[in-house]
Amino acid sequence: MCTAISFKAKNHYFGRNLDLDFSYNESVVISPRNFPFKMRCLDDITTHFAIIGMATVVDGVPLYYEATNEKGLSIAGLNFPDNAHYNNKKDGVNNITPFEFIPYVLSRCENVDDASVVLKNINLVNISFSEELPLSPLHFFICDSEKSITVEPLKTGLKIYENPVGVLTNNPTFDWHLLNLQNYTSLHNGLAVNKLFKSFNLHNFSLGLGAVGLPGDFSSPSRFVKAMFVKENSPKNLETDSAVNHFFHILSSVAMPKGCVQTERGEFEYTRYTCCCDTKKGDYYYTTYENPKITKISMHKFNLNKRKIYEIKLRQQ
Amino acid sequence: MCTAISFKAKNHYFGRNLDLDFSYNESVVISPRNFPFKMRCLDDITTHFAIIGMATVVDGVPLYYEATNEKGLSIAGLNFPDNAHYNNKKDGVNNITPFEFIPYVLSRCENVDDASVVLKNINLVNISFSEELPLSPLHFFICDSEKSITVEPLKTGLKIYENPVGVLTNNPTFDWHLLNLQNYTSLHNGLAVNKLFKSFNLHNFSLGLGAVGLPGDFSSPSRFVKAMFVKENSPKNLETDSAVNHFFHILSSVAMPKGCVQTERGEFEYTRYTCCCDTKKGDYYYTTYENPKITKISMHKFNLNKRKIYEIKLRQQ
Amino acid sequence: MCTAISFKAKNHYFGRNLDLDFSYNESVVISPRNFPFKMRCLDDITTHFAIIGMATVVDGVPLYYEATNEKGLSIAGLNFPDNAHYNNKKDGVNNITPFEFIPYVLSRCENVDDASVVLKNINLVNISFSEELPLSPLHFFICDSEKSITVEPLKTGLKIYENPVGVLTNNPTFDWHLLNLQNYTSLHNGLAVNKLFKSFNLHNFSLGLGAVGLPGDFSSPSRFVKAMFVKENSPKNLETDSAVNHFFHILSSVAMPKGCVQTERGEFEYTRYTCCCDTKKGDYYYTTYENPKITKISMHKFNLNKRKIYEIKLRQQ
Amino acid sequence: MCTAISFKAKNHYFGRNLDLDFSYNESVVISPRNFPFKMRCLDDITTHFAIIGMATVVDGVPLYYEATNEKGLSIAGLNFPDNAHYNNKKDGVNNITPFEFIPYVLSRCENVDDASVVLKNINLVNISFSEELPLSPLHFFICDSEKSITVEPLKTGLKIYENPVGVLTNNPTFDWHLLNLQNYTSLHNGLAVNKLFKSFNLHNFSLGLGAVGLPGDFSSPSRFVKAMFVKENSPKNLETDSAVNHFFHILSSVAMPKGCVQTERGEFEYTRYTCCCDTKKGDYYYTTYENPKITKISMHKFNLNKRKIYEIKLRQQ
Repeated sequence: MCTAISFKAKNHYFGRNLDLDFSYNESVVISPRNFPFKMRCLDDITTHFAIIGMATVVDGVPLYYEATNEKGLSIAGLNFPDNAHYNNKKDGVNNITPFEFIPYVLSRCENVDDASVVLKNINLVNISFSEELPLSPLHFFICDSEKSITVEPLKTGLKIYENPVGVLTNNPTFDWHLLNLQNYTSLHNGLAVNKLFKSFNLHNFSLGLGAVGLPGDFSSPSRFVKAMFVKENSPKNLETDSAVNHFFHILSSVAMPKGCVQTERGEFEYTRYTCCCDTKKGDYYYTTYENPKITKISMHKFNLNKRKIYEIKLRQQ
Repeated sequence: MCTAISFKAKNHYFGRNLDLDFSYNESVVISPRNFPFKMRCLDDITTHFAIIGMATVVDGVPLYYEATNEKGLSIAGLNFPDNAHYNNKKDGVNNITPFEFIPYVLSRCENVDDASVVLKNINLVNISFSEELPLSPLHFFICDSEKSITVEPLKTGLKIYENPVGVLTNNPTFDWHLLNLQNYTSLHNGLAVNKLFKSFNLHNFSLGLGAVGLPGDFSSPSRFVKAMFVKENSPKNLETDSAVNHFFHILSSVAMPKGCVQTERGEFEYTRYTCCCDTKKGDYYYTTYENPKITKISMHKFNLNKRKIYEIKLRQQ
Repeated sequence: MCTAISFKAKNHYFGRNLDLDFSYNESVVISPRNFPFKMRCLDDITTHFAIIGMATVVDGVPLYYEATNEKGLSIAGLNFPDNAHYNNKKDGVNNITPFEFIPYVLSRCENVDDASVVLKNINLVNISFSEELPLSPLHFFICDSEKSITVEPLKTGLKIYENPVGVLTNNPTFDWHLLNLQNYTSLHNGLAVNKLFKSFNLHNFSLGLGAVGLPGDFSSPSRFVKAMFVKENSPKNLETDSAVNHFFHILSSVAMPKGCVQTERGEFEYTRYTCCCDTKKGDYYYTTYENPKITKISMHKFNLNKRKIYEIKLRQQ
Repeated sequence: MCTAISFKAKNHYFGRNLDLDFSYNESVVISPRNFPFKMRCLDDITTHFAIIGMATVVDGVPLYYEATNEKGLSIAGLNFPDNAHYNNKKDGVNNITPFEFIPYVLSRCENVDDASVVLKNINLVNISFSEELPLSPLHFFICDSEKSITVEPLKTGLKIYENPVGVLTNNPTFDWHLLNLQNYTSLHNGLAVNKLFKSFNLHNFSLGLGAVGLPGDFSSPSRFVKAMFVKENSPKNLETDSAVNHFFHILSSVAMPKGCVQTERGEFEYTRYTCCCDTKKGDYYYTTYENPKITKISMHKFNLNKRKIYEIKLRQQ
């Protein structure tokens, strides 16, 4: 369960909460332009745009949770159980495994329009990374500084939606969430205006009554609505420092504290990490559950022409 | 569990839903002016305003659930468990049992102001009607055509509130409900106006989205809010027939269907009857759960100077 | 805006609320077996199952809002604005206008399975009845005593869904509503069980707290959820009289009182009529906003072999 | 608008969010045992328990927002507009100004029981600190490691409530909030158990559906309920580091991001700082809106016998 957003201030920011009940020991991973991405069904990608994001590295391969390339295009994979459907290999299309999807698209696309073209010829195949790492059911949030799309591998095919709100959480499918927003259109950040009681004068006993009805639980529909509300009401034109700080406050408002979300196996999901990427500058910021201090990693301070990945351990304190 | 309202159209109307999981075989009872009300701690009341309302008659005594007198003053008793507190007999005040409260006040008061004076000198005593009919924990809704009050016998004394909304349900105390309305002030009967998504145009997929958040369960706080909403949005200046009909629609919107509200002993509460009194004309209307046809009983068609009550059986079909 | 339900007691019942801000002077109309249904694009239907339901009769043609045939199959048309899509005439399929849909299917199908077969070969065409009666955007609820389906004419084609809940309201599409129910699965008709406050003992101040969260506004998603809740909690195995009476209580809980739902043109929608059909016996029951008394019309008391329709005016008092 | 909580892990923690639309340039202030508290109507307090907390220092006087003394007793003042009532000076009682309340009680009381005794003889007087610093309408949250109370200066007198939940926000009065919790008792951190749809099998599409209905807006009733939910579902027996970290996550779940809560003068309230005090060790932790890194200040590392306050500027980066 996760929440990903695209946020426009002076610059453009992309990031997400990762909510899980376990950890794959993820780290910040930079894939320079000449780090070869081996592909299961296609030729290896030997040169590509440089990429930064959070990943688990297995056998030298970065399995990205979300990432941004040097052109500012960003993709996050989010949990999509019961709905995600991967196919057998097909001829005449580019067969991509779910774990290759992020590097494949970020390798070659500069923006959402590029990605949309590439997506038309993709078949997401049901090949897992290894026996220990089975297929994750995922849908994808893709954004650049101007627009966002949602990509959902459904039984009926790879569905691509325009995402005019710049938010993605989890189930059900994206079109459901978009309609669900209509139940909350009256909410606002101001004082309540008494429309109900024409014969009776009500005085606001609290600020914030204009938003009563905003959901606060941790289910994916509720996180979608609340993230949208907080994002839409953000201060305008924030400069970098304020924008990054505010970005973390948006995601913090839909973060999962430990103990609040129990899984079927009795464990608890919580927000393992939150990240934010200044997509133009390639500056990547993150916090972890244990360490709320924002840590910054600048992609362009690294040699982006190398053939080896940089794996930067998370600071847990 | 019950809902009582006061409703002003061309005329003034008073009535209630009675929601219970059992029945005392109530009927419409008219107490003419010379029907003697025997009192447990005071002299009997031998002459008084005539009264019409729903009551169970036990040993010739009408135990009113709610009633209206010929001056248009109306009182309903509503369930108030855990909160209602009745005292031992005291000197220097008028000791009234809960089951005498309605006839006592309606016997002598023409309007709410009269009642307010009388209430100052009342002590509600803990004397039950009989062993078979123990004390009911009650609070009271009193209204005339101009105003309403709520009367709550609390541990701290007999609390009298102005009731500017003309609605009463059950627990908790009336002041709580009045504050609770503030959580719903933004609701309205129109189309939703998109205040949430400044960057995104939402089209109303349904009428009525301006009231999303209006509660629809059967708890007393929720019935209070919904009855208020429907009453406040009523058409204005309705003539008698339309007004009576609309009155039943208001109460129908907070009525309990069978099966929806289970009690501690595993039974189900439902709306046994709904009544509406045109308080000026003394015309009493009712429906029952089994018989939705509105039956009318006109007080002034009866001889109101007799010494015997009229007990009019409910039409169940 | 409307609510249709299928309800199983000892017998099976089908019916609906019709919520509109205007009236076409509808009446109960019986179409006997030999009343010819003229078709715009197909041969006329000269003999068929007899049909009873609510309709506006224009130029001798019954335009059914909903109806049941003598085999117990029932169909209701419900408002589906912005989503309903009708096509141009096509070759090789049965071109049916929206206003012919109900009589066409009820003429020849005995049950939902029959209807499902017939639906495969239907094209809903964009032909209006007349200039004065333009096309209504509709989706359809079809049920027999064993199962229900929803039929939605979308841009992508005629979509047929199993309807496991036996409820239909309006927008958005049916699959959205079905998923939306998941947000309400915890609601129940009993006392609240304190799962929230492990360190603190809360006493229920009201019955019905187990259902707090049940929506009470009049939007189509909210009516869907509440109708479902009340229906699911209905007493079991009700006999005819109780079942019919209870059926009206279910629909009453989601009925629109005047004044609560304003339309774009400033009028108010309200529940014009409510109907219930005992689908086996062909007994049709209805109430109107003005007349809550249940009126019964038995199909089989009429000569069902005639060639003329019976048009039975609604009793408004 | 603020949220204060008491949280029991291995140790006991106390803290709050301060939500305002302006700042008084607060800092962490330690008042050692011999720093004299000048009193407006009583003799100065020349020696007392040492105190640590957030305060604005004006003319050398620390005006505490909340504080903890070396015995572990803690008090927070929270905004209580329209309800807080301060009296004229009276004879025979201890006349305390609202801004003296925290140091007065923390000076002499070791725990809540001590405070309860002292409170009996207090009159909160309507004397403001200065013309520039008018009276703030406040109510108070007082806790030790074992219990909490709420103190509300009402028109009817100084009301003291047991606070069994260890949470305080703002309006309305505390008893209202406590009853309001009953509307949320069914919420839990697990999967939804389908109690609604007996005839229909619903599969959870998301974790967290057991808590749907939990409010997420920023009004005081909603923050009360959500803070309670997150606190009650906290992991048990957390050790110091985890406990402090978790404490900030609890308050973060009810923190106000910038832009979400507009005031009557068009400004925006947001969570200026969040603090947490390990009440036994006297270790004070805080974050600010701009600086999410937790900063720690240990009271006992300072000389607590001095006569001067320590004023420790907040780290904004």
